[in-house]
Amino acid sequence: MSARAGIVVTGTEVLTGRVSDRNGPWLSDRLRELGVDLAHISIVGDRPQDMRAALAFMAEQRMDLVLTSGGLGPTADDLTAEVVGDFQGREMVLDEQLEQQIAEVVRPLMTRWPGLDVAAIELGTRKQATIPAGATILEPIGTAPGLVVPPQQNAAGPTIVALPGPPRELQPMWERAVQTEALRAAVCGATTYRQRMLRLFGMPESEIAETLRAAGREGVELDRLEITTCLKRGEIEVVTRYEPDSESVYDAFAQIVAERHSDALFSDDGSTIDDQIATLLDRRTIATAESCTGGLLAARLTDRAGSSRYVKGAIVAYSNEVKVAQAGVAPELIERHGAVSAEVAQALAEGARERLGADLGVGVTGIAGPDGGSEDKPVGLVWLTVAGPGDATMTRSVHLPGGRADVRDRATTVAMHMLRRALLGA
Amino acid sequence: MSARAGIVVTGTEVLTGRVSDRNGPWLSDRLRELGVDLAHISIVGDRPQDMRAALAFMAEQRMDLVLTSGGLGPTADDLTAEVVGDFQGREMVLDEQLEQQIAEVVRPLMTRWPGLDVAAIELGTRKQATIPAGATILEPIGTAPGLVVPPQQNAAGPTIVALPGPPRELQPMWERAVQTEALRAAVCGATTYRQRMLRLFGMPESEIAETLRAAGREGVELDRLEITTCLKRGEIEVVTRYEPDSESVYDAFAQIVAERHSDALFSDDGSTIDDQIATLLDRRTIATAESCTGGLLAARLTDRAGSSRYVKGAIVAYSNEVKVAQAGVAPELIERHGAVSAEVAQALAEGARERLGADLGVGVTGIAGPDGGSEDKPVGLVWLTVAGPGDATMTRSVHLPGGRADVRDRATTVAMHMLRRALLGA
Repeated sequence: MSARAGIVVTGTEVLTGRVSDRNGPWLSDRLRELGVDLAHISIVGDRPQDMRAALAFMAEQRMDLVLTSGGLGPTADDLTAEVVGDFQGREMVLDEQLEQQIAEVVRPLMTRWPGLDVAAIELGTRKQATIPAGATILEPIGTAPGLVVPPQQNAAGPTIVALPGPPRELQPMWERAVQTEALRAAVCGATTYRQRMLRLFGMPESEIAETLRAAGREGVELDRLEITTCLKRGEIEVVTRYEPDSESVYDAFAQIVAERHSDALFSDDGSTIDDQIATLLDRRTIATAESCTGGLLAARLTDRAGSSRYVKGAIVAYSNEVKVAQAGVAPELIERHGAVSAEVAQALAEGARERLGADLGVGVTGIAGPDGGSEDKPVGLVWLTVAGPGDATMTRSVHLPGGRADVRDRATTVAMHMLRRALLGA
Repeated sequence: MSARAGIVVTGTEVLTGRVSDRNGPWLSDRLRELGVDLAHISIVGDRPQDMRAALAFMAEQRMDLVLTSGGLGPTADDLTAEVVGDFQGREMVLDEQLEQQIAEVVRPLMTRWPGLDVAAIELGTRKQATIPAGATILEPIGTAPGLVVPPQQNAAGPTIVALPGPPRELQPMWERAVQTEALRAAVCGATTYRQRMLRLFGMPESEIAETLRAAGREGVELDRLEITTCLKRGEIEVVTRYEPDSESVYDAFAQIVAERHSDALFSDDGSTIDDQIATLLDRRTIATAESCTGGLLAARLTDRAGSSRYVKGAIVAYSNEVKVAQAGVAPELIERHGAVSAEVAQALAEGARERLGADLGVGVTGIAGPDGGSEDKPVGLVWLTVAGPGDATMTRSVHLPGGRADVRDRATTVAMHMLRRALLGA
């Protein structure tokens, strides 16, 4: 049986939705890698009784491990260390070595913002260095130390790992937490699960249910696989988790998916479409001319480090004058066919390629809404062209569902998949 | 005393972080408007025992209202209606009118994807129409009906509102839920709180703590205000919630913030910097020439409906050739000062304005990292220029913290604030 874990995310700003939680999902992935089964995420504000209630719930649910994020700062509303110490029945003690260490981290900040209240800062440092007796300290990345706090000797209950809220501090600190004996003791005996992902594009999600039934009929022991599917930015992700001795069952399942959906399946090794485009481009260069996506496709292509090797640039041709003057679209085309048309998408792609001197050009023009639609050209209609490599061109229209933001985002996904086909010569 | 509420988000894809939850934050805002105090958000997978445990926890915490999202679909792993009915001690009954209604919604889908399994779909429809006895039905937006399920007569416990997972279905359905007698009964007596927000840019967050102390010294009754601050995309948001009779206390607090941070305070009416730019531009047009942000600023400006009125377009000048050929940057400038320099930012802004025929031009060039930094020009250094309106130009450099994505995103925020100052003539 695998160890069970819960995550308690603290912070009124997260509870009220003003800041979205990035720690829960990230920790969820890390737990999966450890073979630990995440059963609950609880989000609470900065009230000690609410946090205590969440910890009590996790203990009742027999978690072996509880991770908390946030509330380790120097101010009065940072309560995590104290609440966790109290919950585990451990006294709070000042660790002088830790106090010195934090003081050294804080010193340069005091130089940067002169005029800060020194006494208040020393008080904060002392607070952060006051920790539950018997806790393992995780060295600060920023100023906040993390803590691994086991239950009292011989007592039942979860080991609690208290991590700071900022992802940039939490993430490296988690790597330290995993090395501690206290954490290893809490999760020992966990099975190491394997996890694989299939990604598909261009078919309805419901088809996967039918494929699962077909796999069952063909004798694949589906009860040895934990399969979840979800739709994400227009792509279907099929995630399968299994114990190592079910590898052959997974292989049989993956093969049936590959056979039934050979056109739609584009990734079986975890790679995203963005990874694939970066690899497939190799040394070829790319440029875009975008209307409705307003630069989102260029932003997506330049999202990754090193993209300056292959992205030349883009023309965001939002107005018709810019389409003509910058992207070289013939004004007659816009007049005759309208700005949202196969002809203009083609001219944009060719214009981007020629004017920006790239090997491939992508043109996107559509109606993102909410206004501007007609019976002929409804909101969600997008025309796309990929020009290149070489003489090849590919033009397609799609009718995308959802609101303005959805249409714009999905259009970039469609463009990425057209690029993939163009680069594979398919 | 205000009513207390909890939210239970269901779905293995949310728990495992493959889909980020957009419903919790959205519902959190709606509850606040109703004067209901949100105390916990719990995220669970598709296992009935975990969902039941989360509901039991909410009941123990004496919630008056529990909202659930997800798990109302037609497939076997959609368990919410059944778990909620069981939890409230209510029998599951088939509602034939609802069954017909769902069947009518499903019919066109069957035409769109021919070859679907009709018997399976009818089974799914019947499942979705089987609901806890005594529940109030919320009409489907997609195919899933929502439910308002009160506790048994005379029994204590929360009223549970079951809503579908897709935000586009959940959001309009919530408006219907608020109209139901069952929900109104659960939250009656709730105080209607007011909420106000101040937004500041260009100062460290810690200064707000000092301002709070100053307000206390000046006699502002801070215990009548519930103030939270957070840092979001480089801006500080100060959110204050208070009962209607504390309006004058809030006004006194807001005035002290305005006095102490007159330069940094840019919004006291809830407006975002994006709202303000759209308004301030009025009939003036804008164009950008972007290097490190790769189109993100253009994408941000075109994010809102109607932006084609004032956004002409953009040049994403990722390579130096594109900077020269498309944005008209003199090659000598790049040679002499480097691509990341005040001179090139200026030339980009002027080039965007001239070539795209706009009233204002914005130029952005910087080192987003992780590579490409030097001692002289470290990762995070970004030069920005706003050219216009008229003869005015403003050039600034910033050194932004964080990783590649942070640097790119923050740079767009800095550009927006420079635009604001340029448009205000400040």
